[in-house]
Order: sequence, then structure tokens, then C-alpha cells
Amino acid sequence: MALQERAIRTRRAILVAAAEVFAEVGYEAATISEILHRSKVAKGSLYFHYGSKAELAQAVLAQQLTAMPTPPPQELVLQQGLDEAFLLAHMLSMGDPVAQGSIRLTVDRGAPSGGLDRRVPMRGWIEHNGDILARAKENGELLPHVDVAAAARMFAGAFTGVQILSEIMTNHADLPERVSDLERSLMAGVAIPTVLAQLDMAPDRGLRVYEAALKLRKEREAEEAAPAVACAAD
Amino acid sequence: MALQERAIRTRRAILVAAAEVFAEVGYEAATISEILHRSKVAKGSLYFHYGSKAELAQAVLAQQLTAMPTPPPQELVLQQGLDEAFLLAHMLSMGDPVAQGSIRLTVDRGAPSGGLDRRVPMRGWIEHNGDILARAKENGELLPHVDVAAAARMFAGAFTGVQILSEIMTNHADLPERVSDLERSLMAGVAIPTVLAQLDMAPDRGLRVYEAALKLRKEREAEEAAPAVACAAD
Repeated sequence: MALQERAIRTRRAILVAAAEVFAEVGYEAATISEILHRSKVAKGSLYFHYGSKAELAQAVLAQQLTAMPTPPPQELVLQQGLDEAFLLAHMLSMGDPVAQGSIRLTVDRGAPSGGLDRRVPMRGWIEHNGDILARAKENGELLPHVDVAAAARMFAGAFTGVQILSEIMTNHADLPERVSDLERSLMAGVAIPTVLAQLDMAPDRGLRVYEAALKLRKEREAEEAAPAVACAAD
Repeated sequence: MALQERAIRTRRAILVAAAEVFAEVGYEAATISEILHRSKVAKGSLYFHYGSKAELAQAVLAQQLTAMPTPPPQELVLQQGLDEAFLLAHMLSMGDPVAQGSIRLTVDRGAPSGGLDRRVPMRGWIEHNGDILARAKENGELLPHVDVAAAARMFAGAFTGVQILSEIMTNHADLPERVSDLERSLMAGVAIPTVLAQLDMAPDRGLRVYEAALKLRKEREAEEAAPAVACAAD
């Protein structure tokens, strides 16, 4: 158990360091030696977990959807989806390295020989949005004309661009406000009026969701840790 | 006059070659020697017009708004703005090198030392959108609650992201359709109902605008050339 935990921590240290380096200099200019230096992990250990820079990048990309803390559940499915978008906006505006690194790997075109498949995270986002919209439809939250597949792509694309524009103009400082503008506009085109009136799309929604998600994570960790402590005390 | 024309052609050949190279490999990996090779321009001539790779990139970026053919005038200001967006989407989907190169230079983050100011083209787009929306407002086309400055940013950001997503997933092949989805959604949030019903946002709008713009350009060039021909015949 301790060994497994150490491996998880080592992988985590490597991925955070790799994400930081990818966020700062992009995929092409990133070097394994810089990632080693930042992660303070031994070379052999890094290559045991990840065989190459490309594998590291794919691992950072794979974390894009799973690394975020889980927002507390909401009655409205659309609010649940919005909370994830606002949470990501908040984490980018705080300078979270995994969020920034994975987003840069997704968006930079890279060299043609780069071989990074950026369709993987984009397809992940589109499928995730499609799933949320389909559940919102089942829940009676959507206007009847909404094309779920087209809307899922549009939400993923528009968020990506608003994020890039905010990064270019303000280094992500105004992202929560820009995402609030965007979501208000897009939601007006998909949500029925009674749902629309209930959605919280204020610019500080991301900060509030982040704090609630961290509290929730701590409570869960405490619950999981409790039996282990009891065993140790035996 | 002939000398000036030759200089214009040389600059154009250099810019098209530079845009192609930037589109293919990005700013960092682009080399002056590859740009020279493609443009078939002498080295001294290139350096006479552009002192460095950074100057070339700034020139390609500066062309982003001016290189497109001008769409025919429209009665509705919003249609005029839409036509530009559909035209750009069409040119990207055709693989136009200047459109692709300048868009890549704007969107790729590049190395921190790159020194390319990507705020220049983004600010250009935002100001241009703001100008169109302000004129649409004067013309009575906008819903009363629309915040012109926020909408101008949102349109620029959302288009950018939909373009990137389309490039990643389909190499821009589905861009006209994706821009059609996006504009329908965003326009519903800014245009008054009678205007909304008149806007042409079909996926093939860009192709039709492109053909009309080229026809218009040819007619103007023929008009401008006419007196010169008359002089030569004297």
C-alpha cells in the first residue's frame, strides 16, 4: 500500500512538473531534463513511469478532465455543466499548472512531426458536453429545437476561444468575466426560460464552486482515511 | 510606377511564402531560408523589405484584416459583419495560406522569448467587431440590453475557438458549418427578431460571399486599369 502510494505521488510530481514546463514553453521546446529538475524525481524513475516526452504529454492531456476537483452535485443538469466550465475558468485564472499545461498542449498546433494527438482531449470535451446536454434534455431543461451534437461542439469551441483570447489579452485575469458573458449568451439559446432564470452564471461562480469542491474533497478524504486510522490504532 | 508595382509584387510574394511557412511549422520552427526558397526572391531583396523573422511575422499579422477581399455591401450592418466571418471561414476551409498563417501566428502561444505581440491582431478583431456592433446599434438592429464591448470580445473569442476546434478535428473542413451554428446562436442573443429573421447564416454563405467579393474586386481593378490603358494607347 505504501509502495503504491509512493508511485502515485511520484507520478503526480512528474505530471505537475511536466504540465508546468509545457505551459511555459510549449511541447516542442520542453525537455525531459527540465521536467526532471522540477519534479526532483530520479531519471530512472521518470522513464519507468513514462517512456518519452510524447507519453508525458499524452498523460498531461488525459488528466485534463480528471484532474479537476469534482463540483458539488446540482439539481439542474445545466448548472452542473456550467459549474465545470466556471471551475476550469477559475483554475486557469489562478494559474493552475495542470490546467494551463494541458490547455496549451491542446491548443498549440505544434510541428507536423510532433505526433501529439490533440483530438483526444477535444473529443473528450465534446463527448462530455454531449452527455451533459443529453441529460439536460431528458430532464426537460432544453428548448425543443436544440441539436445536442452541434451544441456540444459549439460549447467546446467557444470556450476554447474565449480562453485563448483572455490569455492573450490579460493572461487569463479576465477569464471568469468572459466565460460569464459567453455562457449567458449560449445558455439563452438552449435552456427553457424557467431554467435559464435559475442558472447561476455570475463571474465569481467559479471561485465559489472551487471552494465548495475542495471542501467536498477534504470531507471524502477524511472519510476514506478514517477506517485506516482505526486499524492503525488497533 | 513599374518599380513601385514590382516592389508590391515582391512584398506580396514574400508575405505569401512567409504565411505558408508559418501556417505549416509555426513561428519558432520557421526559417528565413525556407521563406526565401518558396518566395523565389533574392536574399538582399527580402532583407530590404523585412529586417527579421519577427518583422515578417508582424507583417503577416497586419495583413489578417486587410488581405481578405471586401464582401459586397449589405443593408443590414449585422449581415456585413457576418459576411466577413463567413468569408474568413470559407478561406480557411479552402486552405488559403495568408489566412491560415496569420491565424496560426495569433493563436499559438510560442516561446516566452518569441517577442511576437499577438495582442495586435486580437485587438484589431475586437475593435473591428465593436465598430460593426456600434453601427448595428445606431441602425436599430440590436436588442436594447446588448453590451457592445463585451459582445465584441465574445464574438472574437468564440470564433477563434470554433476555428481551432474545427482545425483540430477536421483540418477546417467543417468550419463553414460550425461557424453557421455559432453565429445563429450568438446572433439570437444580440439581434432584434425582425433583423434576425432576415440574416443569411447558411453554411454556404462564405462561398457565395467569396465569389461575389472576387467579382467585385475584378470589376474595380478593371475600372482602375481602364484610364492607364487609354494613356498607353495615346
